[in-house]
Amino acid sequence: MTDTARFDLYAFWRTSATYRVRVAFNLKGVQPNEINVNLEAGEQRSEAYLGINPMGAIPALIDNAPDQPKTPITQSLAILEFIEETHPTPALLPVDAHGRARVRSLATLLAADTHPLVTPRVKKYLTSVGGFDEAAWRAWQIQWFTTGLQALEQRLAGEPETGTFCHGHTPTLADICLASIVVMTRLFKIELPELPNVQRIMAACEQLDAFARAAPGLQAGAPQA
Amino acid sequence: MTDTARFDLYAFWRTSATYRVRVAFNLKGVQPNEINVNLEAGEQRSEAYLGINPMGAIPALIDNAPDQPKTPITQSLAILEFIEETHPTPALLPVDAHGRARVRSLATLLAADTHPLVTPRVKKYLTSVGGFDEAAWRAWQIQWFTTGLQALEQRLAGEPETGTFCHGHTPTLADICLASIVVMTRLFKIELPELPNVQRIMAACEQLDAFARAAPGLQAGAPQA
Repeated sequence: MTDTARFDLYAFWRTSATYRVRVAFNLKGVQPNEINVNLEAGEQRSEAYLGINPMGAIPALIDNAPDQPKTPITQSLAILEFIEETHPTPALLPVDAHGRARVRSLATLLAADTHPLVTPRVKKYLTSVGGFDEAAWRAWQIQWFTTGLQALEQRLAGEPETGTFCHGHTPTLADICLASIVVMTRLFKIELPELPNVQRIMAACEQLDAFARAAPGLQAGAPQA
Repeated sequence: MTDTARFDLYAFWRTSATYRVRVAFNLKGVQPNEINVNLEAGEQRSEAYLGINPMGAIPALIDNAPDQPKTPITQSLAILEFIEETHPTPALLPVDAHGRARVRSLATLLAADTHPLVTPRVKKYLTSVGGFDEAAWRAWQIQWFTTGLQALEQRLAGEPETGTFCHGHTPTLADICLASIVVMTRLFKIELPELPNVQRIMAACEQLDAFARAAPGLQAGAPQA
């Protein structure tokens, strides 16, 4: 079995968490078999998909290698670490414990402390139960994207480990998370304040084929421009 | 320098993310020097603390070992991985990549997809800008604690890797995150549905001194019972 046939990735063209996994696989030179879960049609709430991930969230990864457990791997951060451990080259984490901690800290500032606040299930709750209209939802999105990205900007500007990318001069899991959030702000047309380091690093990421090919608009199921 | 003097941990008695770090240090036999950041007095928004973590969140960890970088390590998941890498015994992650992925998936289901929705900064926004009264905030808390813990329960009940603890028969990062969320639901007096595996594993955790000693009510700054 080649790596190309090894992984099934339950995915949707638009989502930030799926984007992260696509970029990581691209950087490692692995092409998973993508299975589309149409969030707009509510397919993440189907009985079939809840059997794969009871949280009803994508992505989920299944390893088809014959000698490996078949328990689906869910949560993008867990999938990224799994890809890194099973396909170590090129490395997406530094070798030293402090560097690894910093990369994980920057990554989770976005993937854990920012993204979960602006997911479809939160929108559904706030607009159906919480009394939010479209303008209130938009203000909510702006609040959390801005909070997360401004904190990231301050860290990138102030910490000596910042380089061409978030940590040194090669892309890491932190850059993947940074790009995934910037991509979301573009999809939702969120106006951001000046974020010079974030914008500079996003541009460096987009120079790389692995990031460029993961752009939501290029994926199966995306609306035609 | 002994490990006891090595780490400064910016902490608050009540918070779930600090609890996780306390349990991990306890399991490794390391006692950090705790520095109290009083969230009730808004100290996380002080200029001094924002210089340590621009996100204004605790915990943050500083390594005082003379040859180590002084960049604060923030985000509980990054700190847990750092503790695991620098103090590998007893192991809080399995040895196999699939097992590690499952533990990280269960851990982030709670620490990334559940906890960030019920933090003080979200409460502040919803009650000051979002029009939520106390009852609406309480319904919001119940919604996300229940969603996360029910998804966890289904996975624990259905996946063959579940043992005395979330993954096998020794505690891992997943159990630390499970306990941290259950502890929060108790502090907030959230009534939960029947969660047999979650409750069974919580009881197993509380048999261990490392978890028992981390209970919020036992920490410096906690109100006297």
